[in-house]
Amino acid sequence: MVMAVYPGTFDPVTLGHLDVATRTASIFDTLVVAVYAEPEKEMTFTIEERLDLWKRSAQGLSNVEITGFKGLAVEMARKVGAQVIIRGLRTASDFEYEFEMTFMNRDLAPEINTICLMPSPAYHYISSSLLKEVSRLGGDITNFVPSPVADALNGKLS
Amino acid sequence: MVMAVYPGTFDPVTLGHLDVATRTASIFDTLVVAVYAEPEKEMTFTIEERLDLWKRSAQGLSNVEITGFKGLAVEMARKVGAQVIIRGLRTASDFEYEFEMTFMNRDLAPEINTICLMPSPAYHYISSSLLKEVSRLGGDITNFVPSPVADALNGKLS
Amino acid sequence: MVMAVYPGTFDPVTLGHLDVATRTASIFDTLVVAVYAEPEKEMTFTIEERLDLWKRSAQGLSNVEITGFKGLAVEMARKVGAQVIIRGLRTASDFEYEFEMTFMNRDLAPEINTICLMPSPAYHYISSSLLKEVSRLGGDITNFVPSPVADALNGKLS
Amino acid sequence: MVMAVYPGTFDPVTLGHLDVATRTASIFDTLVVAVYAEPEKEMTFTIEERLDLWKRSAQGLSNVEITGFKGLAVEMARKVGAQVIIRGLRTASDFEYEFEMTFMNRDLAPEINTICLMPSPAYHYISSSLLKEVSRLGGDITNFVPSPVADALNGKLS
Amino acid sequence: MVMAVYPGTFDPVTLGHLDVATRTASIFDTLVVAVYAEPEKEMTFTIEERLDLWKRSAQGLSNVEITGFKGLAVEMARKVGAQVIIRGLRTASDFEYEFEMTFMNRDLAPEINTICLMPSPAYHYISSSLLKEVSRLGGDITNFVPSPVADALNGKLS
Amino acid sequence: MVMAVYPGTFDPVTLGHLDVATRTASIFDTLVVAVYAEPEKEMTFTIEERLDLWKRSAQGLSNVEITGFKGLAVEMARKVGAQVIIRGLRTASDFEYEFEMTFMNRDLAPEINTICLMPSPAYHYISSSLLKEVSRLGGDITNFVPSPVADALNGKLS
Repeated sequence: MVMAVYPGTFDPVTLGHLDVATRTASIFDTLVVAVYAEPEKEMTFTIEERLDLWKRSAQGLSNVEITGFKGLAVEMARKVGAQVIIRGLRTASDFEYEFEMTFMNRDLAPEINTICLMPSPAYHYISSSLLKEVSRLGGDITNFVPSPVADALNGKLS
Repeated sequence: MVMAVYPGTFDPVTLGHLDVATRTASIFDTLVVAVYAEPEKEMTFTIEERLDLWKRSAQGLSNVEITGFKGLAVEMARKVGAQVIIRGLRTASDFEYEFEMTFMNRDLAPEINTICLMPSPAYHYISSSLLKEVSRLGGDITNFVPSPVADALNGKLS
Repeated sequence: MVMAVYPGTFDPVTLGHLDVATRTASIFDTLVVAVYAEPEKEMTFTIEERLDLWKRSAQGLSNVEITGFKGLAVEMARKVGAQVIIRGLRTASDFEYEFEMTFMNRDLAPEINTICLMPSPAYHYISSSLLKEVSRLGGDITNFVPSPVADALNGKLS
Repeated sequence: MVMAVYPGTFDPVTLGHLDVATRTASIFDTLVVAVYAEPEKEMTFTIEERLDLWKRSAQGLSNVEITGFKGLAVEMARKVGAQVIIRGLRTASDFEYEFEMTFMNRDLAPEINTICLMPSPAYHYISSSLLKEVSRLGGDITNFVPSPVADALNGKLS
Repeated sequence: MVMAVYPGTFDPVTLGHLDVATRTASIFDTLVVAVYAEPEKEMTFTIEERLDLWKRSAQGLSNVEITGFKGLAVEMARKVGAQVIIRGLRTASDFEYEFEMTFMNRDLAPEINTICLMPSPAYHYISSSLLKEVSRLGGDITNFVPSPVADALNGKLS
Repeated sequence: MVMAVYPGTFDPVTLGHLDVATRTASIFDTLVVAVYAEPEKEMTFTIEERLDLWKRSAQGLSNVEITGFKGLAVEMARKVGAQVIIRGLRTASDFEYEFEMTFMNRDLAPEINTICLMPSPAYHYISSSLLKEVSRLGGDITNFVPSPVADALNGKLS
């Protein structure tokens, strides 16, 4: 039984995140999507909204649980008994940041491994922040987010 | 008749931006420099100042118009009838951001193409933010900005 | 009247190259695809084959001419009266090489500008060399090349 | 039961490769190290030697099998019934190449996912080619390779 | 007599910074660690605390002086009579920023050269900001900072 | 007394190399330019020619010695009593390769430090290989190489 944790702020979840989660859920026995409750910078959506959007977006995935967390991602992974942390890789800048996080996490919890997956090219060039900016300016982002998120962004930003 | 739009915050315009505009204006029939009026982060210069600095810096370029805009750059390009959006490329980080913007813009307006130009190596390592930081600390940045901008930076920051 | 030149070895032309050419042809009056005749490293296809595959792949593009060339790309551009050289940008490594070429070309021919276009994400992760390797090993590359090229690769490599 | 395949030329296996294999073997039920038998460029070690060095280096790993293969890595993965392909990521250049391979592999075999692991920082800056160059010039590379490989490199290159 | 200046915000000093300083101090006659007093963004530690932490961390280095400064780093270097500015390089993003700073500094003070050193791989993946984030969330960062800094971080953030 | 070694194949020396050497010679007591005699890939110029071109190009630099070497650069540095190895950094790809070399060299000779300098932007986009390619095709590269090298390239390649 291998459990994986996919941590992030997910403000909000995109089709890129969902693609990573779907691929991961097909590999491991259980995937825990872990939404970070207390980021330092201001979020567009509350932790309750971010959890709710993930739940409504991931309904088809039977072995996926959605939960919030505080503190370090590795402590969260330890607590639920996960052996693996999942990270999505889109760009070379992602890559440098993921390296920093991976090696820090290894120092903090050597028994947990971080692995990276790449989302489909169609979702490669989207980030939550770009989608929010485009949505705020009136652009149509329905091709890049699950439909509950499209509605929520419309309500929140316009 | 091909019209190109060169969008940006231009806070303030540098000799690197002017180099990109000059090269573009030599290729296309008309170039519209489009100064973004409502950026989320705080600007050093107001939209009126940023427009005025561009106008005084680009006086020698006969087929260049300077205008402000709100909303999405692709919508602005559509409205003025442009077929092309111009972006300057200086560094590999620029490059990743431009990829994200290019593909989002293609999704929003498939009939408009984004092309990239590289400024001269002499202007390759300057950004508006670096110039403002150096100017604020008393450094001489006259080699890197049009002369009206040097005066404005001196007045604004020291 | 603006003429653009799109130089390369094109060994062989891919759907990524064709995407760049189609976008360019929609912007400029004429596009000259310039196939380099004398590369230092060994090619899979002869110059005649590479020209022929481009011609058969670009039949729908009325303002595109296909021609071979020897010597420097900027000299070729000068000779045909082009003002612009087109380069496709896929990755950050491309980007560094294109910078080197762009600044060397500017030194050699200051009146000619190099501009970069990015192919669609679907063609972003394919290169002629990867396609040839996969084809040689029996993989199906028909999603990534024009159909005349798929046939030619099958004949050449298997 | 999840099986992972770790393909490569491994000319020769380094402590970085062994680190990736050890981490992977702790996550999945079975790991198949797949040594590519027919690379286009010339290898320092024969396929028999590369297999033998892996076998002697991975003796402590009970759920790891070492095997050679020809053709495409995804076809090899399919044949043995693996759901996952493993790749090590060391640098941003690796990263671009891995993106190309990942997306090509997805096109060829959508049911197989590629995941990336990062070796320990201590092994981050070593590649088989650098180690061979240093060893050929008389440098001591015993800190970076399994001991059977150190002996083999000494015999082969000096 | 060659004097080098190592400027930074050092909020707080890490073992990576100390590694760069130790290497530099072994090359040049004198090293001046110059702690920037007036950064635009908010610091976790005051200038007095940042100076104090450096002094207690660098006690073993006899030819190293620690001092605060305001204004441009090159002006500071000029004032103390330094010929060299030292910068640490960890990642490709660092690298781009260092290029910008290096060329700006050359324009401002052509007689002063900037040189870069790379910290040990063990400290390669740590930044002051990552360490503060981990410490704030209760993680143990004692492997990555001098012991006075570990105490100070504990007191400040938890 | 600090001695620095600047190793390379220098096939041939460019104005970028000369710029790095001039800056280094102004910092250290002695600079030894060390031309590698036995590279694995074929050179355009013999070791005698590469040494001769450096000697004629660096005539104005009084504290610079030019010498050939075989084996590892760190062994060469050790033998002549140097404390520092100099490397030029132009691009992010350079950067990754320099990281690999730096950490390998530290393992082989911990008492010797590698430092990096960046050549002027004007020489940032030139490499020996690009210059040879352009020269072979009849392009004028006199802006980028010392004059003895321009003559030698003309004689060798055209």
